[in-house]
Amino acid sequence: MSKEITARAEDYSKWYNDLIIKGELADYSAVRGCMVIKPYGFALWENMRDVLDKRFKETGHVNAYFPLFVPKSLFEAEEKNAEGFAKECAVVTHYRLKTDPDNKGKLIVDPEAKLEEELVVRPTSEAIIWNTYKNWIQSYRDLPILINQWANVVRWEMRTRLFLRTAEFLWQEGHTAHATKEEALEETVKMLNVYAEFVEHYMALPVIKGVKSANERFAGAEDTYCIEAMMQDGKALQAGTSHFLGQNFAKAFDVKFSDKSNNLDYVWATSWGVSTRLIGALVMAHSDDEGLILPPRIAPLQVVIVPIYKGDDQKAMIDEKVDELMKQLKAKGIRVKYDDNDQTRPGWKFAEYEKKGVPVRITMGARDLENNIVEVARRDERTKENYNLDGLADKLETLLEDIQQNMFLRAQNFRDSNIRRVDTWEEFLSTLDNQSGFISAHWDGTPETEEQIKELSKATIRCIPLDNPQEEGKCILTGKPSTQRVLFARAY
Amino acid sequence: MSKEITARAEDYSKWYNDLIIKGELADYSAVRGCMVIKPYGFALWENMRDVLDKRFKETGHVNAYFPLFVPKSLFEAEEKNAEGFAKECAVVTHYRLKTDPDNKGKLIVDPEAKLEEELVVRPTSEAIIWNTYKNWIQSYRDLPILINQWANVVRWEMRTRLFLRTAEFLWQEGHTAHATKEEALEETVKMLNVYAEFVEHYMALPVIKGVKSANERFAGAEDTYCIEAMMQDGKALQAGTSHFLGQNFAKAFDVKFSDKSNNLDYVWATSWGVSTRLIGALVMAHSDDEGLILPPRIAPLQVVIVPIYKGDDQKAMIDEKVDELMKQLKAKGIRVKYDDNDQTRPGWKFAEYEKKGVPVRITMGARDLENNIVEVARRDERTKENYNLDGLADKLETLLEDIQQNMFLRAQNFRDSNIRRVDTWEEFLSTLDNQSGFISAHWDGTPETEEQIKELSKATIRCIPLDNPQEEGKCILTGKPSTQRVLFARAY
Repeated sequence: MSKEITARAEDYSKWYNDLIIKGELADYSAVRGCMVIKPYGFALWENMRDVLDKRFKETGHVNAYFPLFVPKSLFEAEEKNAEGFAKECAVVTHYRLKTDPDNKGKLIVDPEAKLEEELVVRPTSEAIIWNTYKNWIQSYRDLPILINQWANVVRWEMRTRLFLRTAEFLWQEGHTAHATKEEALEETVKMLNVYAEFVEHYMALPVIKGVKSANERFAGAEDTYCIEAMMQDGKALQAGTSHFLGQNFAKAFDVKFSDKSNNLDYVWATSWGVSTRLIGALVMAHSDDEGLILPPRIAPLQVVIVPIYKGDDQKAMIDEKVDELMKQLKAKGIRVKYDDNDQTRPGWKFAEYEKKGVPVRITMGARDLENNIVEVARRDERTKENYNLDGLADKLETLLEDIQQNMFLRAQNFRDSNIRRVDTWEEFLSTLDNQSGFISAHWDGTPETEEQIKELSKATIRCIPLDNPQEEGKCILTGKPSTQRVLFARAY
Repeated sequence: MSKEITARAEDYSKWYNDLIIKGELADYSAVRGCMVIKPYGFALWENMRDVLDKRFKETGHVNAYFPLFVPKSLFEAEEKNAEGFAKECAVVTHYRLKTDPDNKGKLIVDPEAKLEEELVVRPTSEAIIWNTYKNWIQSYRDLPILINQWANVVRWEMRTRLFLRTAEFLWQEGHTAHATKEEALEETVKMLNVYAEFVEHYMALPVIKGVKSANERFAGAEDTYCIEAMMQDGKALQAGTSHFLGQNFAKAFDVKFSDKSNNLDYVWATSWGVSTRLIGALVMAHSDDEGLILPPRIAPLQVVIVPIYKGDDQKAMIDEKVDELMKQLKAKGIRVKYDDNDQTRPGWKFAEYEKKGVPVRITMGARDLENNIVEVARRDERTKENYNLDGLADKLETLLEDIQQNMFLRAQNFRDSNIRRVDTWEEFLSTLDNQSGFISAHWDGTPETEEQIKELSKATIRCIPLDNPQEEGKCILTGKPSTQRVLFARAY
């Protein structure tokens, strides 16, 4: 076990932080609640971003960029949205500093440079974007608008955690405008599916697609669709949301269009987003006590090669073999590194790349090479096997796919064996406390009951799964009749 | 001449704004001085960003992300840097809004949510980054650090212009740390060359590489290297800067490293950046009174095909030919669009794509096709020519390269014929007023004289060109002895 990383069993929360810091994904910063995304973590984010960006473009979306600041009067235009975010807004009030007359070399806010209207640092961009769409939309010919932006947003959270909940985070936010309700709903579901496919196929993390209850809905949405993932401690993590906004923002910003018959109507809207929070999900779902375990498809580094040798002759022989192998791997688009730094020992390197979750490690030993053999270690299962050098590149390509599959299946098995059907309140509480995981249970459908369950158990309704089977039952708390089970869990 | 676009000769400044707005690169926003980058403009920026990002990675750099906010106490640590930016800082003072008790549905800043320490929205990131590097650097083994970030920054400019000078803009900022002065200087020049190559080879814009005078130096730098481009009105535009920061930030943030002999020394630094301002340069350097002219290598759309036909049979025949051509062009990586929207006429489309600066337009007329011919219009020269369909894809590939070359040479000829050697103060003033362009003239080397020249003529020293020939002369203003000519111009 890695000495640097706290064991999961000992302190799950500390384990998580250790993975991020020791795995060099991110670092704390001097700004409360804000983190520095380090190069290794940012390379991971770039890989995730590139896959998503490609999918967005394939589904007809284009990128644009809207201002960081939202004037307060625009921010408050959609009341529910404003109310939902008001308590966590960073607010710019002044536009100048000046030298402190009482303190040489220090600066103070210049009281004469007070803004006439305060600017909110965007916690989300519906307001500024719909205020812009107002000028872009007159007729049905201007619709649909299918725009995405990659941006930073700020939400002043009181309790922060690296990646999972930071005051500033990076994300993408899609904002679309449509002529009909049906088209907007279709878009909402389409983007939910894009997210689900990405998280499952690239992050190797199974998700449950569903709809949020009213209490958990995005402020200003008519309906919030979500994907929910299970972490290794059984808690839920919302991995992405896609909102059907109805005509709420169109009404708040007076965005109307004339249809083919020249009738005026408000425009229909969606918005959808995923953020650097996904990296937190990735870390908590797959890692072990030795460090990160990254899925090959998005790992910044997929294969690392470590030489073991004595003397220059052996080194030269290894270099030659590595050179050939690297060429073949790179031709296949595999991200590979040869770490022949002679300042550190092989054992130290092994631990380092385990900590960083590199999927495959190859040890090239001079003696093994005489037999045309290398040792291949897979990070997910921590197993080692000797491979013949012949056809090695092909075998590694297959191995990376195996690891990707294995990680997904492992997470899926864990998830499926930790969803429990529960029918009584006592069982509900004891399952939450003793077994963790998700609970499938009946609920009477009222916000009041949901709120009460949350207060009593700290569990929330994660979602009402799509295509949920309908069955008669009684609410676990109130005993009132219910027509379907919903998923409860404690959540990040 | 396009009716929508003001002619250059009539109002250069209005011409520029028309190009941006009518060419759909950007739009004004509800936030003072901030713009919306529209999808077409953002696609252009993405192309520029991708080329630069690749070059940064090829030269050994990695990307990371640092916080948007800089605590005031960190911001003021490097005094010259702080002084340089203090007057244009957006400042966050509160972290919460609350409902206005006197105004239902409205929000006010919650006076109880005042930050203990104000946060500056980054105008540049040296402070927050060097405060972080302090924790990452102990020994020479931790060096060099070669990090870049793509980010938004805010500088509260009083007079703003789309792309050229906006309160918020997008940029990249490289921040590197080195063990020796020589290595840092080498990095500074290396990145200046990366910028120069990019601007010349991709933006088709010739630049002059040079060093800034002390007055024009980046606040906190020992030396600022720059590339300067000439716009069509003869004014200069600084297209990129690379700063040798010496040990200034290391001293301000106490960043020391132990060298191989275990001696402690301060770390050497560089920073370098280009921004969305480059788009402003692109627009002003190449466009004409019909609209934008975009260089093929970074144009979002390189070729557009417009059909001219009567009836379904002719349309079907054209579709078939287009289909084949599109496949061939896409296989070559050429960005092509077939605009067969039947809601707009060909003439309208021609004007539209001219306005948007698409390098090549192909008109597929049913009659011409019978002779195996299409009409090819090049945007840079506004000439048309008939091309045989056979081997058309290859010919278009060559044509795009021709246009790229032609645009560069045209800009270079213009630039070279508008740099004038001037030896008297009278000639200096009259050249500025009547001929525009750059002036190569002697200067006595003092900041005071430079300041006085600026006050009297509104011209600044754009740079002291690298490898500047040394020659004896007399300062145009003071008549004092000088050893070299420097470049003066009025500038954006």
